[in-house]
Parts: sequence; structure tokens; C-alpha cells
Amino acid sequence: MKTRPPTTTSSIAMSSKLLTATAVLLIPALALAGEMKAPEKIYRSLDVRAVAGQEKALIKLEKRTAAYWRVTFDNPPFNIFGPETIPQMEKVVSQIEKDPDLRVIVFDSAVPGFFLTHYNFTPPLAESTGLPSGPTGLHPLPDMLVRISKAPVVSIALIRGRATGVGSELALASDMRFASRQKAILSQWEVGAGLVPGGGPMARLPRLMGRGRALEVLLGSDDINGDLAEEYGYVNRSFDDDKLDPFVDGLATRISGFDRQAIADTKRLVDFASLPSDPEIAAGWDAFITSIQRPVAQKNIGRLIDMGLQKDPDVEARLGHYTQSLADK
Amino acid sequence: MKTRPPTTTSSIAMSSKLLTATAVLLIPALALAGEMKAPEKIYRSLDVRAVAGQEKALIKLEKRTAAYWRVTFDNPPFNIFGPETIPQMEKVVSQIEKDPDLRVIVFDSAVPGFFLTHYNFTPPLAESTGLPSGPTGLHPLPDMLVRISKAPVVSIALIRGRATGVGSELALASDMRFASRQKAILSQWEVGAGLVPGGGPMARLPRLMGRGRALEVLLGSDDINGDLAEEYGYVNRSFDDDKLDPFVDGLATRISGFDRQAIADTKRLVDFASLPSDPEIAAGWDAFITSIQRPVAQKNIGRLIDMGLQKDPDVEARLGHYTQSLADK
Amino acid sequence: MKTRPPTTTSSIAMSSKLLTATAVLLIPALALAGEMKAPEKIYRSLDVRAVAGQEKALIKLEKRTAAYWRVTFDNPPFNIFGPETIPQMEKVVSQIEKDPDLRVIVFDSAVPGFFLTHYNFTPPLAESTGLPSGPTGLHPLPDMLVRISKAPVVSIALIRGRATGVGSELALASDMRFASRQKAILSQWEVGAGLVPGGGPMARLPRLMGRGRALEVLLGSDDINGDLAEEYGYVNRSFDDDKLDPFVDGLATRISGFDRQAIADTKRLVDFASLPSDPEIAAGWDAFITSIQRPVAQKNIGRLIDMGLQKDPDVEARLGHYTQSLADK
Repeated sequence: MKTRPPTTTSSIAMSSKLLTATAVLLIPALALAGEMKAPEKIYRSLDVRAVAGQEKALIKLEKRTAAYWRVTFDNPPFNIFGPETIPQMEKVVSQIEKDPDLRVIVFDSAVPGFFLTHYNFTPPLAESTGLPSGPTGLHPLPDMLVRISKAPVVSIALIRGRATGVGSELALASDMRFASRQKAILSQWEVGAGLVPGGGPMARLPRLMGRGRALEVLLGSDDINGDLAEEYGYVNRSFDDDKLDPFVDGLATRISGFDRQAIADTKRLVDFASLPSDPEIAAGWDAFITSIQRPVAQKNIGRLIDMGLQKDPDVEARLGHYTQSLADK
Repeated sequence: MKTRPPTTTSSIAMSSKLLTATAVLLIPALALAGEMKAPEKIYRSLDVRAVAGQEKALIKLEKRTAAYWRVTFDNPPFNIFGPETIPQMEKVVSQIEKDPDLRVIVFDSAVPGFFLTHYNFTPPLAESTGLPSGPTGLHPLPDMLVRISKAPVVSIALIRGRATGVGSELALASDMRFASRQKAILSQWEVGAGLVPGGGPMARLPRLMGRGRALEVLLGSDDINGDLAEEYGYVNRSFDDDKLDPFVDGLATRISGFDRQAIADTKRLVDFASLPSDPEIAAGWDAFITSIQRPVAQKNIGRLIDMGLQKDPDVEARLGHYTQSLADK
Repeated sequence: MKTRPPTTTSSIAMSSKLLTATAVLLIPALALAGEMKAPEKIYRSLDVRAVAGQEKALIKLEKRTAAYWRVTFDNPPFNIFGPETIPQMEKVVSQIEKDPDLRVIVFDSAVPGFFLTHYNFTPPLAESTGLPSGPTGLHPLPDMLVRISKAPVVSIALIRGRATGVGSELALASDMRFASRQKAILSQWEVGAGLVPGGGPMARLPRLMGRGRALEVLLGSDDINGDLAEEYGYVNRSFDDDKLDPFVDGLATRISGFDRQAIADTKRLVDFASLPSDPEIAAGWDAFITSIQRPVAQKNIGRLIDMGLQKDPDVEARLGHYTQSLADK
């Protein structure tokens, strides 16, 4: 597992003392270059943020059998994903890649209402941009998503609650997705806030559901319920909420009994036919990093935080509604 | 805006005097090369054709806001699209490309029963082949379709009535398509008449709905209603007729409030993942132009015109039925 | 038509005398190289196998009209496809490619409960690997599938009963697929037995239904009914059983009246947009041949044969259930 570089760690410590209520995420160029030494970075402390980060287990790994693991996101109240989650996730992905007995992993959530949601906007951007690249050479977030897709084992996203931003992107990087018809919400909300999504949905959604529906998801930036997600192929299938867990567990159990080599060889050929290239994923990440530094995105995120983003359950639960209100002024 | 070359314009004047009832669209090689000087070209005058072409507004542009425009096809009674429509459409596309405030355009129709239908078969072919290439180097019809797909703004086709041939192709070149469940008919009817479709559906349909359903649409050449269009992903979604306009207007209004740069950057990456190349589109256009000169296509179009194509509302409304009757003898 | 090489034929005669109950398909390296001279190859005789192979018509060709043919699989009781079927199928494919009047072929079955099912596991592997390559340079099975996809005529699979393994792969190689809602079962069962599918589904399924659903079909390896096959786009559409034949016959009749050149030119451009390359198909075949020689696959197939594979209708009809029982021990 890669550890957070010391300069970044110390900048967190500094920045956490620099809470202000008025300036949010205004990141000077030096900070972006990872060379910031002085406390120019401004950071808003939120109840939901565990500054200690690496000490708290935000992701839990349960080995149901040697061949079948559960990876559970547990960062209440919203399952926000940020630079503090990345080292833990990297550890999980490395185990997934290396374990010789594993066949199938299921990603799920322990947080009611949220599968996994958007990126954490409260740490300074340099905490994200300053992280060392992963084995693919990509930033560690897209790096992990790419590695999950290419792993020689099967990954299944069990989606109950909101899968927005990183949550949607992790689901899309997984091999299969199953959703609760009543309780799942999927979305790529970023364009609604003036951002470009960073974790690959421009590459993955059109290959999954065709250009037209992908553009609706991305440029409409609205909440997609379980029925529509199934109709569009955003998920493999949606199930009535009480049927979802038995189905996914049954499928995972079934696959866990199959031959590891046959799984890996079959998946590798599907990968050839269906996965975007790493440079295409990198282009999406770069567009996200560029977009987040634009004044309009800074202003929109600031206004969303003022409305209650990362704090008010209603804002997190109805993100598609609140992004529209940005335009309504 | 590109103007129609003088030689072509004069050949229209000549050809319109040469109406015959028996020979239709028998185009000598010289005409195709754009060098025809004598009235060898044979042309059937139809009530529906506005020979004046450029003087009559066949397409209307309404700027609902600076960011949200409506482009309305208004060429009654059938919304046929031909060489006379091209310069007007080119003007609209150029505005779409250049306007700095635009975010979203909706294509719709003012003609009951027809969104936009097939290419106009009454002008001499040289009127089409003689048009100067567009900025992409393609013939102006595929040129405009390609430019709509790549424009930095969002295009939405609101389909009520028949979208056949060019109408289907414009819808497919648009970023999203929504249809009236009761009143939309989509089709690529060309193979049924011995033609190859020219506006890109061989490239776009398989990427949208998979090879099997695309081949059914193209080689079955039959009428597709709103329900099947939705099931196949020919459109994003179909709505009950009274729900279609509010939905599209709501989505367009929503997107019109988003940041122009975020829209453009996100769309550009979706384009990379989903758009066919220009040479692939050019190959389709060339196949269309080749096909229309074959005796079987000439005979079929002549017979369809005898049945009432471009004149009889029943032929235009039930084109899938009438193409089959060509084979039935 | 290519004939079976003599050395392979004689090894069949030898091996059929060597039936044992304990060792199945344990193929020494020499046998795989096609050089086996001694009776090391072990082979289990089954009631369902016509050793005479080429003398019995396993595939029937009916020319309903010059333009519309039916190709009917008739190898009761399960419509198993093996090296004995390949020369007959090659003869059919060659006719399809060469006939100047043909427009459309429909593949169907004369065997109740089975459209076409998995590869025949009872002949020695060398009977398959020893077959000369087809015109594409691929092994004759993937060669024929590739040629069907690229033929200048339309192919339609009418699926009633089980389409598993080769049956699913032939359906996927066809231009369109229509299924009985009540009586069709599609599956790629191979991974469930420790095999990699060999006839191209890793290349074709993701392009048809997207990566997520394709991986579910391939790695879940379970039976897919008519409803789910339609929802996933595994087939174009499913019909109530009594509506299937009239629909397919109507569509085939319709297309058979269209111009052959327009069909071919349109299909060729769809091919460009949607077909995998031959090397991608070859990689899948090679992965299958490699997988079948692994001890785990040999053991699984042996156990399935002990359970009743290729003999017991219940095993053939509920293959997804029996592969799971391999893991359950």
C-alpha cells in the first residue's frame, strides 16, 4: 500500500486549522503542483470528515469463503469517497489482485441510503493531486478503477442507496451491477455542478448503453432510479429490494465455485472487446482536475456546500434537484 | 452559408420544364459529374415541392433563451428533406457551432404526422451531388450530421410523427432522441427500395443498439413504433404523447442552465468513445449515391412515385408497407 | 466439402473399441498433435452419437424460394454439434456464400427442446483439432461462424429450445436472433465446467449487450430464458411461442424480396462497425482448446458425463443447474 506523502499529510494538519466559512477550495497553482508549504490552502471542516483518515476503517473486507469476498463501504453518514479513502481502497484492490484463491468480490454498503457517493470536496485539492500514481501510471483513483476491471476475478456492485460520482464510477468499473429497484439511485451529477466526471464514465457509459443514453446520463446529470437504470443498461438488472441480496449472493456463490483460470481467461477476452484504454481513462481524469479549478465549478461547489452538501442529508439524497437550483439562481 | 452553384440552379429550371410521367431519375453520367448542359435530366414536378427552395423557410429557428434553441422542420405536407433544404440547414448548423451562449438545441417538427422524412427524389441527382463539400470535406448532408454530433452543445430530437431516412439519420446524429409512444414512427426504409441509406445509420445504429437489432432495422427496412424504438434503444425513451413535450422541455431547460465548458468537455470524451470516424460516414454516403443510380433502385423509386410517394399521404405514412409491395409485384 | 482426414477417422474406429467408464477425454499430447497412432485415446460411446457421422444428414437445407432458404438442425435427441457436423455445415455455408439468388437464410431446429447445443465431448479432441483450417485460416468451426456473419445475405436464428455453447455461438454469429418466450433457453455454460467458450461469445456478447451483461452471461454460465434474453439484447426479440414462426417467416419473406446488392452493401458497412476481427475470434478458439486440456476441465466433463451429459435429457435440459452441482461436490 502506498502511503500518503509527508508533505501532503502535514498540509492536512495545517489546513485543518485554517477553517474558514467563506472561502472554499480556492486552490492556488502552487498547491496543485504539490509544492505548497504555507497555509494558503483553505479547507472547511465538516462533521462527516474523519481527519484521522487512515486510522478509521472506511472500507471493510469480509472473506465469506476463500473464493468469495465482500467489500463494504462504511463511511457514514453519506459514504463520501476522498483522498482519505484512497489508501484503504488501494490496499483492498492489491489484495484482490494477488490472492490466489479468490474468484468473486461483491461491493456493497453498510450506510443506509448510500452505496458510495461523490468525491470529498473538503480536503485541499493537493491532497488528491499529490498522491503518487498507481501501478498503471494513472492517478490512484482511476488506477484502482482500471485495475478492478482488469483483475482476474469477478467484481459485482450491489447497489442499494445512492451511487453518485465515484460510487457510480466504481459500479461502472465493476464487472456487473445489480440494483435495488426501490432504493437505488445512480447518477453522474458532475456536469450539473460545472465539473467533468473524473472516474471514467465518458468512456464506460457509451460502451454500456449507447451514446444517446450515456449523454443523457452525463449531460442531464440527474438522478436515475432503479427502473430506468435497468432499462438503460446502467445496471445489469434491478430487483425488488428484498430480492436483491439473495440474487447477488446466489450469483456470487455460484461463480465462486467455478475454475479460477477459466474465469480469468474468459474475462480477459471480454476485456479486449469492451474496456477503454488507460489513456482514455486518463483523459477523463485530467478533464476533471482541470474542471474543478475553474471559477464556475469553485463557485458552484461553494454554493452547494452552503446549501448543505456533505452535511445535509436532503442535499446528498436529492443531488439532482440541488444542482438544478444552481442554475435557477 | 454556401450557395447553390449556378449551373445546378439553372439545371433545376430546365428540368422542371421536362416533366414526364414515365421516366424518373434516369441520370446520365454527365449529370452526376455536374457538367450536364442539356436537358437530359428528367424530373417529375410534385405539388409538395417548393421549387423556389431557398426563398421559403423550411426550417425555423426559435431562440427560447440565449442558451436554449428550438429548430423546427416546417416543410408540409411531409417534411421531405432535399437539396433545397440543405443550404438552410447548413446555416442553422453554422450558428449552432459558433454561438458562444448556446447550450442545447431541440429539433422538432411543425408538420403533423412527420418529424422529418426521406430525401427528396424529384430533383435531379446532380442537384445533390453538385453541392460543394462542407467543412469536414464530406458532402453537405453527412457533413452537417457529423457536425451536429461533434458540436460543443447538446442536441435533442423530439420525435412526433415519421422519422424516416434523413429524419431518422438526423435523430441518430443528435445527442439524444425522445419519441411519442403513440405518434412516432422511425425507419430506415432504403433497402426496401433497393437503396443503401446515406446518412450514417450503418455506422450509428449498431453502436447504439447492437449489431442484431441494427441489421433488423436496416435490412427489414420496416416501420418501428415508439414502443419498439424504446426497447431497441433507437430512442432514449418513448413517452405518452402528452408527456413528451414537457419532458424534453424540462431536460433542455435543465441542461441550458449548466456550464458550457463542462458540457463540451464531457461530450468530447463521449464522442471519442462512441462516434464513428468521418471516413466511415463517407463510405455510407458513397454507397447511397452508387445505389441510387442502379436500375433496380431507379425502377423501385419510379414505382413508388407512381404509387404516390411524395404525394399521397397514405404512401408516406405507411412506407414500410409500400416497399414490401414492390417485391410482391 | 472438406473430408475428415484418414488418420483421424481410423483413430475414431480404434477409440470406439476402447470404451471405459473411468477415464474420459484424457488426451495425451500426441493425440492433440494429430499424430496419435496407438489407442491411447479414450472415448465413451453414447447412444446419441452417430459414429457414421457424415452419412447421416444432421443438417437439412430447404429452399423455400430461390431467395429464402431454411437450414434445419436435425440431430436428435439433443442437437449436439461436433466434428461430425462440421463438414455438413461447411457445405451449407459454402452454398450460402456462393448462391447468386439467395437473400436470406433462417436457422432452426427439427429437434424438440433443442435449437442447437454444446460441442460433442465424446470424440477424441484430435478429431476436432485435426480438421483442416477453413478459408479464413481459422479452425473450421469459428471459420464458419465468421463466414456466416460476413456473408452477403441475411441470416436469422429462430430459437426454440436450448441454444447452448455452439448453439448460442451460431445464433450470435447470425445477423439476427428471435426466440420463443416460453421455449427458448440460451446459455454459454462453459465457464461452469472449467472451459473457455470457443466460438466467439467473448467478442460478440459485449458488443451486443454491453460488458456487464455479457460478463454475467459468460461468467454466471447459467440458463437465460426468453424474457431475459430479450431484455439483455441476447436476442432481437422474444415472441410468444405461437407467434415466433409467423414473425420470422414474415420478416424473412419480406427481406427475400429486396435487392441483393442493397442488402450486401448495407450489411458490409454494418459489419465494419460491429464485427470483431478474425484474430480476436481466433484467440477465443485457442483459449477453448487450451482450457479443455486442463485437468479441471477434463474432470468436470467426466463428472458431467457420469451425471448423464449427452445421454440424460434432464442434464441437457438443465445444464446450468448441473454445472453448479460440480462445485457443490
